[in-house]
Amino acid sequence: MTISSPVRLGLIGAGWIGAFHAESIARRIPDTELVTVADPVPGAAERVAAPFGARASLDAADLITDPAVEGVVISSPAFTHADLVVAAAQAGKAVFVEKPMALTLEDADRAISAAASAGVPLQVGFNRRFATDFAAARALVLDGRVGTPQLLRSLTRDPGLANPGAVKPWTIFNETLIHDFDTLNWFNAGASPVEVVALADALVAPDFKDGGLLDTAVVTIRYDNGALAVAEANFSAVYGYDIRGEVFGSAGMVTAGDIHATSARYFGADGAWAETSRLNIDLFRQAYTDELAAFAVAIRTGEVAGARGEDARAALALALACRASVERGTVVRLGADGRVLG
Amino acid sequence: MTISSPVRLGLIGAGWIGAFHAESIARRIPDTELVTVADPVPGAAERVAAPFGARASLDAADLITDPAVEGVVISSPAFTHADLVVAAAQAGKAVFVEKPMALTLEDADRAISAAASAGVPLQVGFNRRFATDFAAARALVLDGRVGTPQLLRSLTRDPGLANPGAVKPWTIFNETLIHDFDTLNWFNAGASPVEVVALADALVAPDFKDGGLLDTAVVTIRYDNGALAVAEANFSAVYGYDIRGEVFGSAGMVTAGDIHATSARYFGADGAWAETSRLNIDLFRQAYTDELAAFAVAIRTGEVAGARGEDARAALALALACRASVERGTVVRLGADGRVLG
Amino acid sequence: MTISSPVRLGLIGAGWIGAFHAESIARRIPDTELVTVADPVPGAAERVAAPFGARASLDAADLITDPAVEGVVISSPAFTHADLVVAAAQAGKAVFVEKPMALTLEDADRAISAAASAGVPLQVGFNRRFATDFAAARALVLDGRVGTPQLLRSLTRDPGLANPGAVKPWTIFNETLIHDFDTLNWFNAGASPVEVVALADALVAPDFKDGGLLDTAVVTIRYDNGALAVAEANFSAVYGYDIRGEVFGSAGMVTAGDIHATSARYFGADGAWAETSRLNIDLFRQAYTDELAAFAVAIRTGEVAGARGEDARAALALALACRASVERGTVVRLGADGRVLG
Amino acid sequence: MTISSPVRLGLIGAGWIGAFHAESIARRIPDTELVTVADPVPGAAERVAAPFGARASLDAADLITDPAVEGVVISSPAFTHADLVVAAAQAGKAVFVEKPMALTLEDADRAISAAASAGVPLQVGFNRRFATDFAAARALVLDGRVGTPQLLRSLTRDPGLANPGAVKPWTIFNETLIHDFDTLNWFNAGASPVEVVALADALVAPDFKDGGLLDTAVVTIRYDNGALAVAEANFSAVYGYDIRGEVFGSAGMVTAGDIHATSARYFGADGAWAETSRLNIDLFRQAYTDELAAFAVAIRTGEVAGARGEDARAALALALACRASVERGTVVRLGADGRVLG
Repeated sequence: MTISSPVRLGLIGAGWIGAFHAESIARRIPDTELVTVADPVPGAAERVAAPFGARASLDAADLITDPAVEGVVISSPAFTHADLVVAAAQAGKAVFVEKPMALTLEDADRAISAAASAGVPLQVGFNRRFATDFAAARALVLDGRVGTPQLLRSLTRDPGLANPGAVKPWTIFNETLIHDFDTLNWFNAGASPVEVVALADALVAPDFKDGGLLDTAVVTIRYDNGALAVAEANFSAVYGYDIRGEVFGSAGMVTAGDIHATSARYFGADGAWAETSRLNIDLFRQAYTDELAAFAVAIRTGEVAGARGEDARAALALALACRASVERGTVVRLGADGRVLG
Repeated sequence: MTISSPVRLGLIGAGWIGAFHAESIARRIPDTELVTVADPVPGAAERVAAPFGARASLDAADLITDPAVEGVVISSPAFTHADLVVAAAQAGKAVFVEKPMALTLEDADRAISAAASAGVPLQVGFNRRFATDFAAARALVLDGRVGTPQLLRSLTRDPGLANPGAVKPWTIFNETLIHDFDTLNWFNAGASPVEVVALADALVAPDFKDGGLLDTAVVTIRYDNGALAVAEANFSAVYGYDIRGEVFGSAGMVTAGDIHATSARYFGADGAWAETSRLNIDLFRQAYTDELAAFAVAIRTGEVAGARGEDARAALALALACRASVERGTVVRLGADGRVLG
Repeated sequence: MTISSPVRLGLIGAGWIGAFHAESIARRIPDTELVTVADPVPGAAERVAAPFGARASLDAADLITDPAVEGVVISSPAFTHADLVVAAAQAGKAVFVEKPMALTLEDADRAISAAASAGVPLQVGFNRRFATDFAAARALVLDGRVGTPQLLRSLTRDPGLANPGAVKPWTIFNETLIHDFDTLNWFNAGASPVEVVALADALVAPDFKDGGLLDTAVVTIRYDNGALAVAEANFSAVYGYDIRGEVFGSAGMVTAGDIHATSARYFGADGAWAETSRLNIDLFRQAYTDELAAFAVAIRTGEVAGARGEDARAALALALACRASVERGTVVRLGADGRVLG
Repeated sequence: MTISSPVRLGLIGAGWIGAFHAESIARRIPDTELVTVADPVPGAAERVAAPFGARASLDAADLITDPAVEGVVISSPAFTHADLVVAAAQAGKAVFVEKPMALTLEDADRAISAAASAGVPLQVGFNRRFATDFAAARALVLDGRVGTPQLLRSLTRDPGLANPGAVKPWTIFNETLIHDFDTLNWFNAGASPVEVVALADALVAPDFKDGGLLDTAVVTIRYDNGALAVAEANFSAVYGYDIRGEVFGSAGMVTAGDIHATSARYFGADGAWAETSRLNIDLFRQAYTDELAAFAVAIRTGEVAGARGEDARAALALALACRASVERGTVVRLGADGRVLG
């Protein structure tokens, strides 16, 4: 689809994923233009903006109110997300925000309300929804090919955190497994979680266990349609990024995710060998690009194709339930509003 | 290896797996001889024994005390297993017993003690240990190729129960997932479970949920080496028998299990297609045969290569913990003796 | 199927494949009995026969005329096959002969005639027809799932010849690729070859090239239904036995063959890894056993399920055409009788 | 890599691949700019140029001499390629030309000379060199992981020609298999073909066989390092685009190519299923884009990373040898200059 004039976007946050988004907006996506990059760290926005002829700013507020900006892409640290979503929405800008959209349900509700009041599109960066294999798997589920879902699985294994000390408390649930929670909710569309139990530990970096600095977790979720789902994460996959999903139901099963870097295969005296994917942006290059292309379409059409604010809230509710389950050491029940009961 | 004279075996229980074992003993395994088949159902033992020229009996006790029998293979209903193991051991016979070896820890302890006192080999029918892919996976774990196990998975998806009413209470844990529990313990050799939580339901046959007639379950286990393991079962896999295992650790991952019936692949106008495995005895034909061949070797050498009585007790302890977790609706802790605490 | 009394077989040739067949007959196949093993090498027959309580003989003629023998399994050197088939048939015995059944078309015709005159089953050891994946692939072809065959492929890569000096002239066509020729004819059932061109070389052991001691070959065949087929062989596959087949046609494609030893997979810091198949009798254990089980059934029913004498002749005709193509350095045409024209 | 100012490209030929290249230049590739599109068909250039703000022209000569154009991308019909390469080179422009670069060796030599004389980069559109799996396979070959190549394979199966009447004589060799010839030469780097034999037919559209309108072909090539290679093509693959490569050698084997559209897999009551790739520009989207990105780099650095004029000539020599082999019905030998002997 060709859009007559490019969609003008501003980017907040010039870290690694911000830099990748900047290049996508400027170079990989037809019909988008990178107007401004904002980051409070001196020089950071400049480094990302300059190669594409975009402006750089230290101040996100300026970017948000800039009339040249039609949509805002937020890839700053997680704790800043909700306030930026609210500010951008109130300024009448379409919003794409990296996960997690918020760290509390109150903040998630504020963000959703602000976008709804302003009538602007609000899309959240659950990029797996745009990965071709995950999208194909979900299409089969929606087509009824697996029947009623009964068992689901989603896992994230990360090749390793350079600096374990940088892991924030509950990051494994709030920033990593939140991807899996969205995937599970999306695969099991229309159902709501009613029970959650999480077992977790600091196996990679045991010294950081205190205060919730966990690196290994298994979460089981019971949904109100009877389905049982497992989400799993770990931060030390030496073989590369490993992201997989599975939906089993009364009529069949779908799986998605492939650890191999390419389809090339080698067979030698020691057996069969293949290269594995090492970088998140290699594994999900297409998904990261397509989710922003969809955002550009959303700005023109008003239709959000990816995860919405409500989806981000639902995934967050599961992350918060995991924390409660770990702290209580037991199964927790969720109310209709996604809050932990009792 | 050729053994000078065949190992003479008696078979108790002439159901479908008994019939398969009879043919393995009589025809598929070098160096074994089927002497007698016993089953209390009139005609049942005769039907299984006759084609191989073996004797038939209605009375297991006669078979056990028959001096012509060197080893007893027990494939009668689960509730009879422990007493038959004890009787056979006391008669000085080597014992192969189908899983579960017992339904209570007391009975498991009695069976183990009887074999130990008599100095006879006691092997339990956890056939996955003999499947070439599971064995290859475990060899890689023992070689240190996955490092310290951190996340494990074992699943059983059965193509369907002909008669849901025939499912006994807690069968999913005691007779199905007990395979997965043994696989997980065997993969994570040397570690002991300390916490268990099971979520389960009757999704296939909801009318039978009362009384523990469950058909879908997810179990999470925490081991004392920090590893978290998931076991999963369901009784309605329309695509066939699906048995898989996975061990992820600090140095890598191994997976085992393949749903495809053969390596033949078809590509047509509708896409790619392959046949899937339909029958347990197709999927595990080699494993069912090799576990009995190993039993014959154990009778001659005294060395049990498969699962021992202690392994069966450890798997049973997990099955019983699952029942407690479902009944209490929470995470349960296990003591050093495998019993649920509190 | 259970047959009332075992089929009594005599085995001629106590080499490695003879020893494997002996164990299959004695131990792996229901309803067969190993009566005698004959081999002119002193002690060879005894070594193979003794573990199974069979008689040993230095003289194949004695075995053939022994009234206790119902069927003869011939696994002696290739140059002896045709005469032994004729002698056994004339003695009224059913015959299973390893490939190649003969080394000339005249000998092939003599063997076929002898069996036909005597009214005895004649089965040839093209074991790939019994491999589950090749059989599944061919069933799809017969079901019309690939439409009219247009392109076929069959390859044999052998992990290595211990002693290149032992390779006889034209072995690559007569003893190795003859498997692929049968596979291609069987996949493309009903069609006849009309043109053949072979390019070959001694790449593994160049010193032995003179006199046809070739180790690498590519053969292209044009069939009278228009299909073009490629057969390929090499004797130095360091990664193990690699046997694959492919049929592409107007409605789709089927492939068969898998290099991996099991479905176990390993993922480590260096990438993905799997074990490969090393031994022919590992890769085709099931096929080698099932072809003899089918021979036993043929003796009882008169119906040959595997390759017949005519099939062996057709495969041999292609091997001889390859020799002519290599010697002439050009494409050769085949007559209706399979002989090279011109 | 970021280049300070965009590389300004002109595109000749506004057919389907021209349109795809235009969008790649304008939108998908960092650092390139689409200046002009030329096509003699009224309106064709306009349709492709307009969405990207590029100029449109009916006249390739104007485009070639336009000082605003730094490099020319030629995707016009094959018969025009050589003259356009010469003209562009003489005008001092870098040249990217779709395969085949020429249809005669004389034209190929003219094109190569023109680029050499002008000192401009000349890159040919053998896009498989940029496909990640083919590139990974070749890197393993160059690393010595397969040892000395002994058997190679490259195949092209196309999902179908909409209009068989549009197939030009010898298209299967000149325009389709020329991809496979380049792949084989590139995999077997440093070796030269010495013998070629082609068997071909019109199986899909038999009415068009006269005059070389072939749709199915198998080509065998002997190289001067002893390696034997097979190239295969067909125009009626109902399951989608199927492009595969294989290199087997003294130390191992590599394979490349995957028919599946994504890694999503479905398992249902009828077995296992997966979607297959349908469109060339889906299968090779990344390769088509990256080859043009490499061309932009070549313009700035002078280093051609893809196939050069000499590579295109070598592939063409094989296509012409195939025609000679089909016309003579025999094996043909090639001289050192790539011409058919005799």
